Amino acid sequence: MGVNTTGNDTLRTLLDGRWAELRERTRKRLGVLEAPAPGLSREEHREHVLRQLRALASSGHSTAGFPVRHGGDGDFGGSVVAFEMLGFGDLSLMVKAGVQWGLFGGAVQALGTDAHHERYLREIIELDLLGCFAMTESGHGSDVQRLNTTATYDPDTGEFVVNTPNVHARKDYIGNAARDGQVAVVFAQLITGGEEHGVHALVVPIREPDGSARAGVTIEDCGEKAGLNGVDNGRLTFDNVRVPREALLDRYGHVAEDGTYSSPVEGTGKRFFTMLGTLVRGRVSVAGGALSATKKALTIAVRHGETRKQFAKPDGTEVPVLDYLAHQRRLLPALATTYALNFAQEALVSELHAVFGGDESDDQRKRELESQAAGQKAVATWHATRTIQTCREACGGAGYLAENQLPQLKADTDVFTTFEGDNTVLLQLVAKGLLTGYRDHLGDLDTLGMARFVATQLVGAVIERTPVRALLGGDVRDRAWQLKLFTDREEHVLDGLVRRLRNAGEDDAFEVFNNAQDHVLRAARTHVDRIVLEAFVAAIDRCPDSDTAELLERVCDLHVLANVEEDLAWFLGHGRLTTAKAKSITSEVNSLCAELRPRAAELVEAFGVPMEWITAPIAQR
Amino acid sequence: MGVNTTGNDTLRTLLDGRWAELRERTRKRLGVLEAPAPGLSREEHREHVLRQLRALASSGHSTAGFPVRHGGDGDFGGSVVAFEMLGFGDLSLMVKAGVQWGLFGGAVQALGTDAHHERYLREIIELDLLGCFAMTESGHGSDVQRLNTTATYDPDTGEFVVNTPNVHARKDYIGNAARDGQVAVVFAQLITGGEEHGVHALVVPIREPDGSARAGVTIEDCGEKAGLNGVDNGRLTFDNVRVPREALLDRYGHVAEDGTYSSPVEGTGKRFFTMLGTLVRGRVSVAGGALSATKKALTIAVRHGETRKQFAKPDGTEVPVLDYLAHQRRLLPALATTYALNFAQEALVSELHAVFGGDESDDQRKRELESQAAGQKAVATWHATRTIQTCREACGGAGYLAENQLPQLKADTDVFTTFEGDNTVLLQLVAKGLLTGYRDHLGDLDTLGMARFVATQLVGAVIERTPVRALLGGDVRDRAWQLKLFTDREEHVLDGLVRRLRNAGEDDAFEVFNNAQDHVLRAARTHVDRIVLEAFVAAIDRCPDSDTAELLERVCDLHVLANVEEDLAWFLGHGRLTTAKAKSITSEVNSLCAELRPRAAELVEAFGVPMEWITAPIAQR
Repeated sequence: MGVNTTGNDTLRTLLDGRWAELRERTRKRLGVLEAPAPGLSREEHREHVLRQLRALASSGHSTAGFPVRHGGDGDFGGSVVAFEMLGFGDLSLMVKAGVQWGLFGGAVQALGTDAHHERYLREIIELDLLGCFAMTESGHGSDVQRLNTTATYDPDTGEFVVNTPNVHARKDYIGNAARDGQVAVVFAQLITGGEEHGVHALVVPIREPDGSARAGVTIEDCGEKAGLNGVDNGRLTFDNVRVPREALLDRYGHVAEDGTYSSPVEGTGKRFFTMLGTLVRGRVSVAGGALSATKKALTIAVRHGETRKQFAKPDGTEVPVLDYLAHQRRLLPALATTYALNFAQEALVSELHAVFGGDESDDQRKRELESQAAGQKAVATWHATRTIQTCREACGGAGYLAENQLPQLKADTDVFTTFEGDNTVLLQLVAKGLLTGYRDHLGDLDTLGMARFVATQLVGAVIERTPVRALLGGDVRDRAWQLKLFTDREEHVLDGLVRRLRNAGEDDAFEVFNNAQDHVLRAARTHVDRIVLEAFVAAIDRCPDSDTAELLERVCDLHVLANVEEDLAWFLGHGRLTTAKAKSITSEVNSLCAELRPRAAELVEAFGVPMEWITAPIAQR
Repeated sequence: MGVNTTGNDTLRTLLDGRWAELRERTRKRLGVLEAPAPGLSREEHREHVLRQLRALASSGHSTAGFPVRHGGDGDFGGSVVAFEMLGFGDLSLMVKAGVQWGLFGGAVQALGTDAHHERYLREIIELDLLGCFAMTESGHGSDVQRLNTTATYDPDTGEFVVNTPNVHARKDYIGNAARDGQVAVVFAQLITGGEEHGVHALVVPIREPDGSARAGVTIEDCGEKAGLNGVDNGRLTFDNVRVPREALLDRYGHVAEDGTYSSPVEGTGKRFFTMLGTLVRGRVSVAGGALSATKKALTIAVRHGETRKQFAKPDGTEVPVLDYLAHQRRLLPALATTYALNFAQEALVSELHAVFGGDESDDQRKRELESQAAGQKAVATWHATRTIQTCREACGGAGYLAENQLPQLKADTDVFTTFEGDNTVLLQLVAKGLLTGYRDHLGDLDTLGMARFVATQLVGAVIERTPVRALLGGDVRDRAWQLKLFTDREEHVLDGLVRRLRNAGEDDAFEVFNNAQDHVLRAARTHVDRIVLEAFVAAIDRCPDSDTAELLERVCDLHVLANVEEDLAWFLGHGRLTTAKAKSITSEVNSLCAELRPRAAELVEAFGVPMEWITAPIAQR
């Protein structure tokens, strides 16, 4: 076996993009990892994943994102790619790696200062120190700014007292907590001299060397989950646990020996978002991992669709199910959109690499990156949930058998829409960024502030930017027309949203915003759709070979027109498409399915999922 | 604990409908059954389910559908309701019960004659004989008419020789096969005197008394599945296994001692569909079970949405997530449609009871019932898959934990869209029935025949039946207008389909039909939508209490308008709704969500899911 080397090399090269070499290296690494044996108990699976994690560390997988002087490669973007590639293998391992090196290691790196780096990073890379990222609380999943855990400085002893004041403040769903974590980066409200300074992070030991919970720390096991059972998620409760002053990761907030607080960032809110911003990598990573799982599911389903036969033609020959239009319509638009999201992901990782991998960037660029990461995470993970479900159904009863891998893919990825930010909340973050774009400068307005701002500042600022007439002509396969269509939709939806929100007053701001929530989500969604399409177009422009470019043009058409078809009500209702053109969209999607059907195998092969990890009997040739 | 008795009794009574007493009895039975302990291995779960199945049999659960003279209650419709109610408990148990009493027992009853009934039924009811329903083959899931297993009569010994000629003919996914089944009802091509008579069913012993496979029978285990792991699905291969002549379930096809074949039904095709028609109960049952699981998931998610708080209003009070429009939009339209499908299911079961529970009905009525069963099964199971997924996501990280039950519900129900007929295939069956409705009499035309028929007979037969103008006025909450809208859509889609298909000639019939496959599915879907709405309207008419009727009117509005909103592109594209009205649909859905939000708890409580089976911590008060 080994990596599939037949097929379209240009396509593979283009999909692999800037980190192609790292991708190939990770494919080889995956090739020597072991899949968890069927029927492992939860504890055995956890044990297996930890062993594989050690194998990964030994193979040099964990170095990418860390600074060179602490044993890393200094390749920030590469760390996301390395994570994403693990998505072709056991997703529990991918997530465990993400917890250890991305979240835990990443927090120490981003929020800590030299002493922390010196002390911890090499151990983290080499897995001599396993740790948790303890942010989420039982009562506060999405609203992190209102976390209840406290870290109170005691100047008499020079220590912080970490405490869980109530059951809602219990740290929940924390990876690495139930079994393996020795320490945790705990997010808590920092209090010194009776004053609150907002959420900060501290390194808190949670286990004794023998693995038992440290005094004052209560560790619970989240138990069985839908999937990802190789990851030991747990709950942490702190009963006035004391840690030295040095435990505070103090890049954005320092406490002197006498308890004096200082920070390079003014304002609790702004500081909080600055700290959170350094965690944007997690969202980009989840988007990437979701895409890997989607590629694997599509590889299985397309291979099955090519060989599985049902019913006979009039001449008696049985028909491969992928020859049926209904089957093509399930799989091929999803395949096309996976291409689109692949290229959008590449663009996003490159931007992440530029912003965080190099010198400090300006706030504006960081905000935009955060917004795009939030959008890509939401769209890519929903795409994964939906596509993997579709693949399961498209493989019929065989798709329900564990041996065919789709059940595990479905179960493991299902939480991706929730963790690293609930998708619905993330899209609202994107929308907020877009609304903010109506202003000249940035701030940390909350939802209410934004509604108020819009109410007072933006009256009359709304204009129709694209002449609608320009959209009614044009061929549906004309890329310029498609881009105009997406851009116009985005602008129009946003304009309409602003119009609705500006009616909000101080008293009814919540109601007004809440009543417009579907509109808010749609504004974000249409924005992401436009960004994704632009990334696809840019990728085709990069394609060195005209045959492959021609193929990609059709994949892009299918992606676009399937998107338009799903949103046809909007385009019709807003006079963007005539009735006749709307009908032609559907028949064009059907035609593109027929055109691309013979290329389906080639298109999934180019994803380069290592064949060692495609063990499904239905996917064998 | 016990059955929740607070809440709206009128609503409960209306939902429980005709078989209310049986439903209450089954709720009580469920109350004393044991849930499988967390973390059971597959074998332990199977063992547990078998024990619970015996408890069910002892409690009298299994008698409903069987004839009184063989120990049954003679309540055909009641057997479906009894199955459906098990969907509030462990779905593995529900499916195992369905395999044993519905499929296996039902086949013996429907396809066998007196001697078979006398010999088997009582043992089946009392679980002294466990059996399989061995229809599906590895190579032929949906196209059952082309099964490859053979049953060849040998007049010299008076035996049938049952054989699996190739690997595609292996019986696959067969419940009760891997562990418990002693016999199997095997569907095979019947051959006698060198002549083929189409698919028939025979009772074939597959295990020795000690549980080992009988000589000539190879039994494999399908192994781990996404869910339903308490059901022992397996594969059966027959190597010229001999069974006596009496093994043939010969109601629709008899073989005399000398090998002479006789049948009360003329024609292989018609005979096959007559035999298959008796199995319609399985589809109705799966639809019912899917709805039970959906009700359970909604009960959990709504209770969670009422207590879980995220973010704060300007005044500092934290907001229950169900107060957010986006959350309401996820759950409440799904809740409304669950009401609609509940009433449609009740109507369908009543019709099933009338057609199969009493005297023989005419073919026309049977065909219509089959078509409606196929449609309801497809729509209800897709609704279940989608709604349970939505509930999982709406409960965030908590929804991913096994203790909150949603993962199991999702995993167990996921195959419902596939088994007892793949939904995509079933909807094509519905469409075929609708096309057949263009003719005066019935036949067993296959897809090609239908296309040919349409091509030659129907030119010019298409008319627009509803004046479109009549739709443009009317209030969106006016029920008569809604019904007209649904009826008009159904007629228009079907007319358009006929127009497309009549262009098919003998040579391109497959292509024409395949290119119209999305149109075919849409025709079926819109037909089912209309039937479901009519059932909802009829239920409101039955409601004795005006307050409850008023509540149901709004639930019905939400069901209808959410459906219209999803299909808005069609209504706009076909001039059925003006742009202004289309916009009012969305704001009306939002308003209905707000109106129904305070009643959400009452609406799920009325489902009457026994609280013993709502163990999710997030659903406790």
